[in-house]
Amino acid sequence: MTRLPPNELDPWSSDLIQDYRRLVEQFGLSEVTERHLEIFGDAPFFRRRIIFAHRDLDVIAEAIRSGKEYAVLTGIKPTGEYHLGTFQTVKEFVYFQRKSESALAVFAIADIEAWEDNGQDFDVSRRVAVSNVADLLAAGLDPERSYVYFQSREIRVQEIAALAARGITLSTMRAVYGERHMGLYLSALVQIGDILLPQHPDFGGPKPTIVPVGVDQDPHLRLTRDVTAKLRSKWGFLEPASTYHLIIRSLLGDKKMSKRDPMSYISLRDDEELVRRKIMNAFTGGRETATLQRELGGEPWRCVVYEIAKFHLYPNDDRELERIYSECTAGERLCGECKAQIVEELVREMREHEKRREEVLPLAKKIVERASERQPLYKLT
Amino acid sequence: MTRLPPNELDPWSSDLIQDYRRLVEQFGLSEVTERHLEIFGDAPFFRRRIIFAHRDLDVIAEAIRSGKEYAVLTGIKPTGEYHLGTFQTVKEFVYFQRKSESALAVFAIADIEAWEDNGQDFDVSRRVAVSNVADLLAAGLDPERSYVYFQSREIRVQEIAALAARGITLSTMRAVYGERHMGLYLSALVQIGDILLPQHPDFGGPKPTIVPVGVDQDPHLRLTRDVTAKLRSKWGFLEPASTYHLIIRSLLGDKKMSKRDPMSYISLRDDEELVRRKIMNAFTGGRETATLQRELGGEPWRCVVYEIAKFHLYPNDDRELERIYSECTAGERLCGECKAQIVEELVREMREHEKRREEVLPLAKKIVERASERQPLYKLT
Repeated sequence: MTRLPPNELDPWSSDLIQDYRRLVEQFGLSEVTERHLEIFGDAPFFRRRIIFAHRDLDVIAEAIRSGKEYAVLTGIKPTGEYHLGTFQTVKEFVYFQRKSESALAVFAIADIEAWEDNGQDFDVSRRVAVSNVADLLAAGLDPERSYVYFQSREIRVQEIAALAARGITLSTMRAVYGERHMGLYLSALVQIGDILLPQHPDFGGPKPTIVPVGVDQDPHLRLTRDVTAKLRSKWGFLEPASTYHLIIRSLLGDKKMSKRDPMSYISLRDDEELVRRKIMNAFTGGRETATLQRELGGEPWRCVVYEIAKFHLYPNDDRELERIYSECTAGERLCGECKAQIVEELVREMREHEKRREEVLPLAKKIVERASERQPLYKLT
Repeated sequence: MTRLPPNELDPWSSDLIQDYRRLVEQFGLSEVTERHLEIFGDAPFFRRRIIFAHRDLDVIAEAIRSGKEYAVLTGIKPTGEYHLGTFQTVKEFVYFQRKSESALAVFAIADIEAWEDNGQDFDVSRRVAVSNVADLLAAGLDPERSYVYFQSREIRVQEIAALAARGITLSTMRAVYGERHMGLYLSALVQIGDILLPQHPDFGGPKPTIVPVGVDQDPHLRLTRDVTAKLRSKWGFLEPASTYHLIIRSLLGDKKMSKRDPMSYISLRDDEELVRRKIMNAFTGGRETATLQRELGGEPWRCVVYEIAKFHLYPNDDRELERIYSECTAGERLCGECKAQIVEELVREMREHEKRREEVLPLAKKIVERASERQPLYKLT
């Protein structure tokens, strides 16, 4: 595998890389280096520089090396099915759990956020969550070392949110989130509770925790780190570590895949025909005519179809990805045939995922059922 | 018992009555009338017009008459012992529970507020709460029809707070509470959760709920009523009813008794000598000299010592209170002898309370222990 300098014609780069560079500098993130790949190079999203920055990843690397306990945390707002954008985080989540026998995976079902942001009732969230949890399990999560919970049913999250709140001024909230209604501010506090939950005494207290996110989530992590520092003297919390991945673009090439616009993404539940149609209509790096494309070559760094392949296909075959890239730039590959190949591979991956999903669906139901239980009213006698 | 027109020389009036009148009009409270006394006249604080206004008290009256289920709710910020100011609410709380076999008493230990407002740790709150709960029980609370909880340990409160938050704008929060840090805003949301907890599905759903408070607490109740109306379509919550009592003044006659200034109040844990000293130093309605007092009479409506008697003494003997009042205004009673009488009576009441308290202390410990339990982490197998 050739490594080219970033921002050149690098199969692992993105046309957004300039902006990402700026983010790294502006927020003081650390870059992922060759040294990190020695440990994390078994993950395609590290090798392909989809994860391009981090905070305190070395703390996690050290825990892995020494077999020390650590946690990985993520979550989902259960307002719909996973799509190729949101599923990226799931793959990273499972990876960090599977990477060490000593890792605990903690997964938040953000039903409070679904209510505050989308007005979705808690009971609807419980129904939707079964499918989300099934996707987690199908992606390879080890249920034995996992804790999946609903924000509205987990008192420990609320406890930490309340602890955190005292240290946050209204002007900080406005700076990070803008002028929002109280529900969204509450939701932000609860998310701090999510991130620190693995360090709650009921989980054995302070431990390194890694939170894999898209880079747009960093303001939230910075706030959490600030608050953590303030709570450290009493609770001993460690500042959460984080990794940042590139944001997969919408199929139309403009913004990110969003649940609010179904034509912008490929859902894990889309049927084969719909996947085919969406890919065929997707924005590419192709030229206006086949003749021009043969002459000038395509621009895979602008191509959403290539991006899908980079994020989700050929996890153990980087050479195939390089081949697509170089054939495209050389004008040896036209968009039609390329799309057909990607559709076939994507559909095959999705079909396999679906098969695993069916097997784990009963377990997903059971997990949601357990996580839905409220503390019973205590009795004195 | 003679009834005089309000704001005349009425033993049940207060020199603050003008201000209270204004509050009633400004906030749209309803006045307590003779009709209410037909039902609630067995309580000295109703007869003596200490409770002078209400919202929806008739809903509770109707529930009492028809034997229908209702709840009474109050709480305490567990940052210290009850004093004669805060204890007023306890007496009303117990009264509304004892008034009907169908009443449920729900009591919030506001450890989240103690953290947000005073920076007091949750575990300190748990220790202090034992004493507070013992006072509740000594005041006559029936533990069989009670639910006592810590805000930080009660997921149902957090659930309702999250539901409520979505309906509240930041400008509403600023209007009601001013520009405060996020902790105090969170605390306000949690208090809405407290007030609606008796109507949570786990408590059998919507039911009339009465919240006895000092009149300074009304802004909070108005906010809760607004939010309740918005949640009604989905959860069926009824707007909470409330009663408003006069605020007992500081021993120095200026502002209200406050935990932040120990010389401003008489704590239920003050020893007899301290009670004596505090009463002897208290602000009265006496004249500058004994001669003047015999000539002009005293002004009991300005007297804190009389106020203590009105709030807390001779619960079944209004005539004694009237006698003190008229002897004072007639110049037949000097402050020294009057204070001696009040000290003796107050100390006697406190001693009896203390005796009951010792008996119920083990139960108070047990209640706090149960209420402190966190939901265990669920197991899949």
